[in-house]
Amino acid sequence: MAERKGILFVLSGFSGAGKGTIMRTFFEKYRGFALSISATTRLPRAGEEHGVDYFFITEAEFEEIIAKDGLIEYTRYRNNYYGTPKQFVMDKLNAGVDVFLEIEVDGCSKVKKLFPDAVTIFVTTPGAEELYRRLKSRGTDTDEEIMGRLARAAEEIRFIPEYDYLLVNDDLDECVDALYDLTEAEKARPSRNEDTVSAFAAELDTLLKGE
Amino acid sequence: MAERKGILFVLSGFSGAGKGTIMRTFFEKYRGFALSISATTRLPRAGEEHGVDYFFITEAEFEEIIAKDGLIEYTRYRNNYYGTPKQFVMDKLNAGVDVFLEIEVDGCSKVKKLFPDAVTIFVTTPGAEELYRRLKSRGTDTDEEIMGRLARAAEEIRFIPEYDYLLVNDDLDECVDALYDLTEAEKARPSRNEDTVSAFAAELDTLLKGE
Repeated sequence: MAERKGILFVLSGFSGAGKGTIMRTFFEKYRGFALSISATTRLPRAGEEHGVDYFFITEAEFEEIIAKDGLIEYTRYRNNYYGTPKQFVMDKLNAGVDVFLEIEVDGCSKVKKLFPDAVTIFVTTPGAEELYRRLKSRGTDTDEEIMGRLARAAEEIRFIPEYDYLLVNDDLDECVDALYDLTEAEKARPSRNEDTVSAFAAELDTLLKGE
Repeated sequence: MAERKGILFVLSGFSGAGKGTIMRTFFEKYRGFALSISATTRLPRAGEEHGVDYFFITEAEFEEIIAKDGLIEYTRYRNNYYGTPKQFVMDKLNAGVDVFLEIEVDGCSKVKKLFPDAVTIFVTTPGAEELYRRLKSRGTDTDEEIMGRLARAAEEIRFIPEYDYLLVNDDLDECVDALYDLTEAEKARPSRNEDTVSAFAAELDTLLKGE
């Protein structure tokens, strides 16, 4: 019986909704998943590490990877490149490991084109005022930048119906557990268990012929 | 904000896979769900109760309900009627309660026509030999009846790809928890959270205009 192929989970959502924290907490709590690490040309924020949070690379390096078609998707946002290296994801999925991608909303449809079986998840705060408070308390953006992020959220919200799941990040632990629940649910799709069904059918056939 | 409508979960699967036991254990462990009770003209098995396991009614009574269009679906199997009374399900869903239906495979597509948002789940044993062992140890069927059930399983297996989920009932507790996981996952569908998204969009709009 062939090994189950890994499932690609794509997490996106409003800037400030807590995608990074959700991923960090999820990976501390649950085993058996790999996190795809994005490449970016933006500067690291305090505490961010190269090879952990992102691969922090130069514009020239990024454009070389683009030229080699080595990215699943990439986008330019606020004068920086963000992208998803392809090989890592392919290798993990083929080895039967489930992979998480954390990407911007406009990258999600590109991923779906390359991986039609990908499971897409949109993360939001309980409300817009809470989103504003979180962006404000993060202390990394000017007021103008925060309003820019909210304006971007107003555009992104239209894409929520295209996602498979919507997670409201109110209580972090509940949100992380809800995320795990849906990974479990997705493993129970008939399309991801065709080998099990075939094996059952063959066994049934033997039983019926044997009598 | 409108109350969330209930979700209809449809459980079917091979005779002998343990649907009844799964439902009983699930309802003992998890709250907030209603179980639709089917009507049937077959005789109660040992331990089965009227109004709990089934409504055990006469053929004349059953045909009167059919005539009044009071059933979501019904089927005739081994000279008995089995059917799902409509009103109970409608009332619960409208009150925001999630409802479980346990029905035969050929009833499932009928339910999907009436309730396109229904979530369908197919239950199987880990293999066909285990199915045979369980039917045998149940002690309610002759060998001929058991082979009839296996032959029926061989027909039903072709419908598994049409189901939303496939649950393998190996360890009962794990199976029941997996069932709960998928009910939680289904609550996180964007299509079931349109009010939340609308409310968020309105709040965001106010924030952006207010500055």
